[in-house]
Amino acid sequence: VNARWDTVAIIGVGLIGGSLGLGLRKRGLARRVVGIGRREATLREALECGAVSEITTDLAAGVAEADWVVVCTPVEQVPRHVVQALHAAPAHSIVTDAGSTKRSIVRDVRRLLAMESAAPRATFIGSHPMAGSEKTGVRHGSPDLLQSRLVIITPEEDTRPEDAERLTQFWQSLGARVERLSPAAHDQAVAAISHLPHAIASLLAANTSEDDLRLAATGWLDTTRIAAGDVELWRQILTQNRDCVLRSLHQFGKVLNSFTQALEHQDDAELTRLLALGKQRRDALAD
Amino acid sequence: VNARWDTVAIIGVGLIGGSLGLGLRKRGLARRVVGIGRREATLREALECGAVSEITTDLAAGVAEADWVVVCTPVEQVPRHVVQALHAAPAHSIVTDAGSTKRSIVRDVRRLLAMESAAPRATFIGSHPMAGSEKTGVRHGSPDLLQSRLVIITPEEDTRPEDAERLTQFWQSLGARVERLSPAAHDQAVAAISHLPHAIASLLAANTSEDDLRLAATGWLDTTRIAAGDVELWRQILTQNRDCVLRSLHQFGKVLNSFTQALEHQDDAELTRLLALGKQRRDALAD
Repeated sequence: VNARWDTVAIIGVGLIGGSLGLGLRKRGLARRVVGIGRREATLREALECGAVSEITTDLAAGVAEADWVVVCTPVEQVPRHVVQALHAAPAHSIVTDAGSTKRSIVRDVRRLLAMESAAPRATFIGSHPMAGSEKTGVRHGSPDLLQSRLVIITPEEDTRPEDAERLTQFWQSLGARVERLSPAAHDQAVAAISHLPHAIASLLAANTSEDDLRLAATGWLDTTRIAAGDVELWRQILTQNRDCVLRSLHQFGKVLNSFTQALEHQDDAELTRLLALGKQRRDALAD
Repeated sequence: VNARWDTVAIIGVGLIGGSLGLGLRKRGLARRVVGIGRREATLREALECGAVSEITTDLAAGVAEADWVVVCTPVEQVPRHVVQALHAAPAHSIVTDAGSTKRSIVRDVRRLLAMESAAPRATFIGSHPMAGSEKTGVRHGSPDLLQSRLVIITPEEDTRPEDAERLTQFWQSLGARVERLSPAAHDQAVAAISHLPHAIASLLAANTSEDDLRLAATGWLDTTRIAAGDVELWRQILTQNRDCVLRSLHQFGKVLNSFTQALEHQDDAELTRLLALGKQRRDALAD
């Protein structure tokens, strides 16, 4: 069997990490997929699902022979895991992550590296696979989670072009489209397209009385679906991207206010304009 | 063939009216399903889809032998069509509708009736099938659109209990669950569970820049799906239920403000509380 890579190590084998492992193994891209984590039960589940070929709770041992290390832990833990991997992985290895925020992760990785005496051996470039689910855990994973989905990578000024290209090909090999953005451009765009909708969906659900819930139809179910996402994961994401999310919230508050004013003053033209603009934006994307 | 009813007339054969016809015919519930509308092309499409067994642009002729008349036109047209049907349908007939607002329709039906010299022959009771789609037209319809869905009926003080019971059985025969609410209770609950989410989804979509759209993933797509709904239909609904929708918008604005404040002041406990409440409400319903 000619796998494209010998070893891929995945730190954190939940929905994203598990799906990544399933995708690599289904496509025969890696001879070994090492699942690394803290909890034995989670690791064993990933092994049983076929998402990884071996498991360990020892991060350094797990990444020791890895061509690729993908850190799929909650965003607050990502920098520490990235730095540990950068020291323990081979020099040719690229370490990346799957975190939904980028400035904070990139900054904290640099801070942690600056505090250490030894230089890192491997190379870090941030990634954000724009795929996921309100569900959690490897048992909800899919080998095709990334198929036709977008992965944003955030090379920095000192990233070697060939490393960014290798990372692009890594995600493409799993069926993803890849776009490059700076960490700052990433955080601003993703605040608008992902973090704001998450906050709004959560607040819509939180704002619904238990009594009204029984009347919920597909509209409410669609609009609030992502509110079922993991609370602590999302608190971390929203907090790490605080300034951009606040800017998006304020901008949304203005549009909400325009709409409320238009309804209050029976301004049909403005109501129609806003509803038509929303329909135009939504119709621009297929389902 | 022993159909349960001889003739059902449907005024307005779009997504809801067409699905109703498909459901009645699939289940063999009516010998004749008469599609009534203004546009020949729409009527012919309904006939070709098998949603109705005959078509006419003459409302009075179409309902003349109907055991049931269901008015499925946009909410601003419903009262006029209901009143026309009440005069032209047989005395034993029940006229109902599929409008998403109820106080305004019930009030306008009474107003129009009070302006006429002749008493109506048939009986009106309002209905709101809580099923639909952002799609429009009979070609997106389904005979099972109402299966396991909720239909709210709004009997009034002078509604005979046996008529409310007959209407309940009518919707149940199509697989729906039926709940009774007053028109006022309906409008308040539906503002919260349906009209507010529609407005919010539209505003989220309208608020997204064309540049950010290319980064949209499933979260954005789910949360904004209903923004693709018909603009004029929804402008009418939101306007007819203006006071209740405004109350829901103001209440949502308060929760949005609490969340924004919590994020601004790094109040993790409050962020967690709101996200957890949203998750709890969403998890209470299966998909």
